[in-house]
Amino acid sequence: MSAFDFEVAEYENRFEAAQRLMRRDRLDAILITSEDHFRYFTGFNSPTWVNLTRPRYAVLPCQGEMILVIPTSNAEIAARTSWVRDVRTWISPQPADDGISLLRDAIRNVPSGYGRVGAELGPESRLTMPVGDFLRLGREVSTIELVDAYPLLRELLMRKSAAEVAKIQAIGQIASSAYEALPGRLRAGMSIREACTAFRHELLQGGAETSPYVIGVAERHGYPCINLDPSNKKISEGDVLVIDTGSTRHGYFCDYNREYSFGPLHEKLRRIYDIVWNATEVGIRATEPGRTMGDIWQQMSNSMQEASEAIGLPFEPFELGRMGHGLGLRMCETPSIAPGVETVVEPGMVLTIEPSMAYQIDVDGETRRYVSVHEENIAVTENGVSLLNRRAPREMPTIA
Amino acid sequence: MSAFDFEVAEYENRFEAAQRLMRRDRLDAILITSEDHFRYFTGFNSPTWVNLTRPRYAVLPCQGEMILVIPTSNAEIAARTSWVRDVRTWISPQPADDGISLLRDAIRNVPSGYGRVGAELGPESRLTMPVGDFLRLGREVSTIELVDAYPLLRELLMRKSAAEVAKIQAIGQIASSAYEALPGRLRAGMSIREACTAFRHELLQGGAETSPYVIGVAERHGYPCINLDPSNKKISEGDVLVIDTGSTRHGYFCDYNREYSFGPLHEKLRRIYDIVWNATEVGIRATEPGRTMGDIWQQMSNSMQEASEAIGLPFEPFELGRMGHGLGLRMCETPSIAPGVETVVEPGMVLTIEPSMAYQIDVDGETRRYVSVHEENIAVTENGVSLLNRRAPREMPTIA
Repeated sequence: MSAFDFEVAEYENRFEAAQRLMRRDRLDAILITSEDHFRYFTGFNSPTWVNLTRPRYAVLPCQGEMILVIPTSNAEIAARTSWVRDVRTWISPQPADDGISLLRDAIRNVPSGYGRVGAELGPESRLTMPVGDFLRLGREVSTIELVDAYPLLRELLMRKSAAEVAKIQAIGQIASSAYEALPGRLRAGMSIREACTAFRHELLQGGAETSPYVIGVAERHGYPCINLDPSNKKISEGDVLVIDTGSTRHGYFCDYNREYSFGPLHEKLRRIYDIVWNATEVGIRATEPGRTMGDIWQQMSNSMQEASEAIGLPFEPFELGRMGHGLGLRMCETPSIAPGVETVVEPGMVLTIEPSMAYQIDVDGETRRYVSVHEENIAVTENGVSLLNRRAPREMPTIA
Repeated sequence: MSAFDFEVAEYENRFEAAQRLMRRDRLDAILITSEDHFRYFTGFNSPTWVNLTRPRYAVLPCQGEMILVIPTSNAEIAARTSWVRDVRTWISPQPADDGISLLRDAIRNVPSGYGRVGAELGPESRLTMPVGDFLRLGREVSTIELVDAYPLLRELLMRKSAAEVAKIQAIGQIASSAYEALPGRLRAGMSIREACTAFRHELLQGGAETSPYVIGVAERHGYPCINLDPSNKKISEGDVLVIDTGSTRHGYFCDYNREYSFGPLHEKLRRIYDIVWNATEVGIRATEPGRTMGDIWQQMSNSMQEASEAIGLPFEPFELGRMGHGLGLRMCETPSIAPGVETVVEPGMVLTIEPSMAYQIDVDGETRRYVSVHEENIAVTENGVSLLNRRAPREMPTIA
């Protein structure tokens, strides 16, 4: 049984598409160092990325075969999970030369036409090697200019194959089952940590492989922020709990949240839920091939503004800077659904639709600021979109 | 209830120690970008690091107060988890200037005596920001030289406080309970993935917060490599399963493995287990204040070589490049227990003792290469060491 995530043909297609773009952008090669890009192009899959001691490199020339430069102790991983056969190794750690001379030679020997090699340097990139070694590499391949490969990678990874979409859908469905099981497992008096641990057990049981992102916040009548590590604070009757997860299967992420009300929901919060649920609906419907990300953002924003004003609520944006983003081997990928972003919706894109707003509420005589964020994961098809997870319930679930 | 991992005094001590080293090393400030260093100095704790879209920065001046430069949507996280009060924010994402001008101004306004600012550039470092932005920052603060802060950070983080050691011990004990529960949950016919999922449930139930590293390999009479993502291959009678985990609580890692024999253990493998178990014992005893990492490596290596030769087995090293490493907010930290490493054992160090060897075995008429790796987590005290997890059993546990 192959341990590959995809058929070899899928990897070949990705590499060929990258090579076409390299020739268009006048790059002799691309240097890949980060876990998600490595897995995308080479298949290489291992939890060993947590260990920062031993770096690994893939060189994608614009013509010819791909090259892996990896620690000897990773060779068997490559043999089992990667389709790439040109594998060059050194015994790491070796801080004085941790693969850099091997990498330099691989880059120098790429047929050089343009004198330019791309690397992961631009926005949202993380060069996953010591930067001191990268600067040294730049000096050692002095006739070759190291330039930003981000625009090319972004363009390529943004368009998912049907096989990729299926994997995102698989983890999306697993997370839906975990969220739907929670009302049977939650009760007032549990800590936020315990609630999130119960959720993690459900995710695991359903087939999620990793859950690097599980946040939980619960306060009286709402949550003032997201992104908090679950605390040991007890959940009380009257609290609203938000849980969000980025979980994976075969490396691909889902990314969406759900809210739960402990006891009857405060009327104002019921209306906010309605406003943001409807804005999500607007965002999903607005996502059509040809529209821009800026358009989708504007429609969601307008929807919340109008609905807020209709009930006499001043509309206040939450400072997330966007209302959705790409999704794939990373939890957050390009593009951003944000004001003025001109990126056009295309079939194959996988996006989160994530409207949000802030609001004030009087709790025990004190005015507090809360936020409301809804999120769903969709894939763009030729005709419109398909939802990859099960839609949030029309009313916020209540924990009796 | 504070959500801080430690008393504020602990963070103040860390910062003061860093400031002393900065003045010694003639640095005006250190720029911190990576999750573990951020948590160490500022307390900032959030799963949001999985999202690479929004970077965050901490500036540690050699005199005066620490500064956070973080996205507006992270301000509430900082208010709840960080002791730092000078927090500067911008609404991110903003790819054209994602915090860089704020960061530049913070760095420019640090009282400048040396004209040098340290960054995470050296071996084992990961600059957790777009490198394009780092290069731009370097141009914009042109009178200030950006240099490597790795030697300073390494020196500081290598020496743990008693409170840190207690946290590593807590997760070490949790993992011990999870490993010890496995014989009751494993059976031939399960897949490696199912065995590792059972292990993950045990870790969660015991109080582990994250388990970013869980590997599993099982083959007939041994395992030919480590670091493999658990596959769907069924475990058969006669297989040996190895599981290894890096799991965390309050951000601190344990890192050690255990082996399980499905049915009676092959006699040669019983002897290998004995040799590597004893080498671990030698490594633990060799870890005394004043010894070098190279010494500890040599003693473990000699122990395995002598014991192998005593039973007529040619000793063959496994190409991991070391036999242990530092442990803390990262799964693998400096120092390496490796040939020639002159770093001296000091009280406060937390280390993994991790001897390994390779061997050949005839299986079904075919000669195969296997490896054996044992691992334990220890803290160095004034007098010797203390074991932070429960020691591997004297004989490999058998799954009936």
